[in-house]
Parts: sequence; C-alpha cells; structure tokens
Amino acid sequence: MNGQEASEKPLRTRRRDPEGHRAAILEAARHTFAERGYARTTLREIARRAGVTHGLITRQFQSKERLFLAAVPGNSDLERVVAGDPATLPDRIAHAFVQRMETDAVNDPLVTLVRSAASDERAAAHLLVAMQERSAAAYRSVLSPNAPAALGDDLDTRVALVGSHMIGVVFSRYIARTEPLASMPPEQLTEHLTRILRHILFDDAPAPRNPPQ
Amino acid sequence: MNGQEASEKPLRTRRRDPEGHRAAILEAARHTFAERGYARTTLREIARRAGVTHGLITRQFQSKERLFLAAVPGNSDLERVVAGDPATLPDRIAHAFVQRMETDAVNDPLVTLVRSAASDERAAAHLLVAMQERSAAAYRSVLSPNAPAALGDDLDTRVALVGSHMIGVVFSRYIARTEPLASMPPEQLTEHLTRILRHILFDDAPAPRNPPQ
Repeated sequence: MNGQEASEKPLRTRRRDPEGHRAAILEAARHTFAERGYARTTLREIARRAGVTHGLITRQFQSKERLFLAAVPGNSDLERVVAGDPATLPDRIAHAFVQRMETDAVNDPLVTLVRSAASDERAAAHLLVAMQERSAAAYRSVLSPNAPAALGDDLDTRVALVGSHMIGVVFSRYIARTEPLASMPPEQLTEHLTRILRHILFDDAPAPRNPPQ
Repeated sequence: MNGQEASEKPLRTRRRDPEGHRAAILEAARHTFAERGYARTTLREIARRAGVTHGLITRQFQSKERLFLAAVPGNSDLERVVAGDPATLPDRIAHAFVQRMETDAVNDPLVTLVRSAASDERAAAHLLVAMQERSAAAYRSVLSPNAPAALGDDLDTRVALVGSHMIGVVFSRYIARTEPLASMPPEQLTEHLTRILRHILFDDAPAPRNPPQ
C-alpha cells in the first residue's frame, strides 16, 4: 500500500541527504544482519528498515556482500588505525578492536559472521575469510618492510593466529559470555590482548617449516 | 513394533558387555550431538542409534548434560594429561588438544558446543563454561603450587585466555576453515599453540588490576 510512496520518497531525499541515507542503510544493515544472520538477511528487508528503495542500496553498495563489508565498523579506517611504528602495532590493533567491540558488540558484524559461520553458512565463512584477509593485508603493510627475516618467513601464519585469537575472544566475551572474560574491564582486556598479540606476532622462535618426523 | 524387544535386549546383554554398551552410547552421543547440535539432541535418539534403551542411558549417565561431558574425548584423562612439570604444561596441553582434534574434529563435542553456543543455545554456552572450568581446574592444580606471586594473581584470567585461544583455533581451523590454519600440518599447529599458550600463561607482565584512568 505504501509501496509507491516508499519507492519514491528516498529517491527525492537522496539528493538532499545522501550521507544520511548511507548512514541509515548501514545502521539498518548491522541490525538486520545481527538479528537474522548473514544468509537469511535480504537487501529488501534492509531497504524497508532504512526507509529507502532496494534500488538505492544496490546503486550505492552493489551486493549484499559489499554492503556487509561496508557495515563493518573499522573497515573503512583500517589502514589509518594500523599505520605507525611496527613495534606498537599490537597495541593499536588491541585498542581499536576492544573500543569497537565495546561500542556495540550485539550488532557488530564480526559477531554476526562468527555466529553464522558456526551454523554452517558457507557464505559467512567466506566473508570472514575476506575480512581476515583485509586485516592481514593491512598488518602486513606495516610489518613487512621491517620484519626480521625469521618472522617474514611465517608472517602469514602469525597474522592468521592473531585473527583466530581475536575470534576466540569475541566468542568467549560476547557470544558464550564465559567468565572472567565477559566481565573484564575493557582496559584490562586491551592490556591482555596487547601482550598476547605482541607475542603471537613478534616472538623470535617461529615454528619449523619442516618439523622432525 | 520392536519396542519391547529393544527395551529388553540391551538389559540382557548389558551384564555380559557393559563396556561395549558404554562405548556404543558414547559414540552414538558424539555423532548425534555433532549432527543435531546440543539442544535438539534427545537421549531417545542416542538410545536408538546405540541400540540400547533410554533407561540404560539414564542409569549409566543420569542426564543429557552428564552424557555430553562423558562423551568429550580427553575429559576422562584430563588430570593425567596435564600432570607433570608446570614449565612444560603448555606443551602437554597443545599436544593433547591437537591430537584429539585431528582424530575426529567433525564429531568432537567442543566443535558441537562452539556451533551450538554461537546459535544462542544458552544450554550449550553453560556446558562450554563447565568444560572450560574443568580444564581450568586441572591446569591450576599443576600451576598453583609453583606459580610466582605475580602470575598467581591473575591465573584465572590467564587460564581463561588459554581457553578462548583454543576456541579461536577450533573455529578457524575446523569450523570456518580459514587458511593458512586449515591446512597447517598438525605438528606445526602444535608448535604454534605451544609457544602461544606458554606466553599466555607465563609471561611476566600481568595486566595491571587497576589500570590508570
């Protein structure tokens, strides 16, 4: 009944407030993905919630996958966050990660992906890989020129282990909510994450490539 | 139609082969929990698969929760695995964990619990907590008498971080199957886990309890 009205109004206001629409779409996307999981979310449902047309979303974001990635907080300024002294990269990763998760963990797309991938949604697992690869590329861009030879040798593995550590923390603190991680003050979590990421990335005893039989 | 037959036969053979029935029940439990998740699994379905009566299961295991915990590989010999030199506890944890997961990750109850808890099954999250607490108690029994004061102060946190790290590895390698962790040789995974668990448990810079404002 309101179909025609809904399909015209956003187009008219888009020219006046494109940033407002973009923000509304991203917020509706985060909530819908969080509530329904990745696979069951449709662009149509997001459009309805954001009060815009389906066409406006596809023009701005092309696909559900791209909209999802755009809705991940921190993705847009990932390079800015990680830029700086390689030695303190773990501090910056831990700080940005905890700050972001504490802001709105319930609707955080990383939580959505972990939940969806755990329910065997292959699309979610692929997206998780895509997100991890984006982070990994950003970490590598800071570390590679400065990495000691021994570390460069298995940098990809170390970056992947950072990713899996952060997924474990997300799971324990925000999904299963196991103590003492669930109630730990954010500052203390940041301290622990920093020291652990530092060891995962930098300790000087990489695993042998060809372990003895 | 075979109800009466089924309900009598196991009782007769139980006296002859109680160990055989116990093993059949545990194997049926692992497969059923893995296929249906924790919440949707019933003791009746496990009984049917194991070819025993519902009553035999409740006599032997009391409840679904206890049967689940009994079906977790390694739970029964946890104390034996962790016993020994505290300094090499991370080596023993990592080795036993990788060996167990490599044996049958698809049907491993830890994978089931992570999947179920991610789908918001509170019962699964509670069980995961129970499993982590069992492991934590075993680790503490080895570490506590020898822990330096600084470490003893936040031993619970460190043990919880070990648990969340292992959940992250389970998730990345066996559920989402992200590379390079998914295809890493077990020996190399054991090496990485050992070094990371060692740092999580032992490094000598515990996070401050009252971080500066």
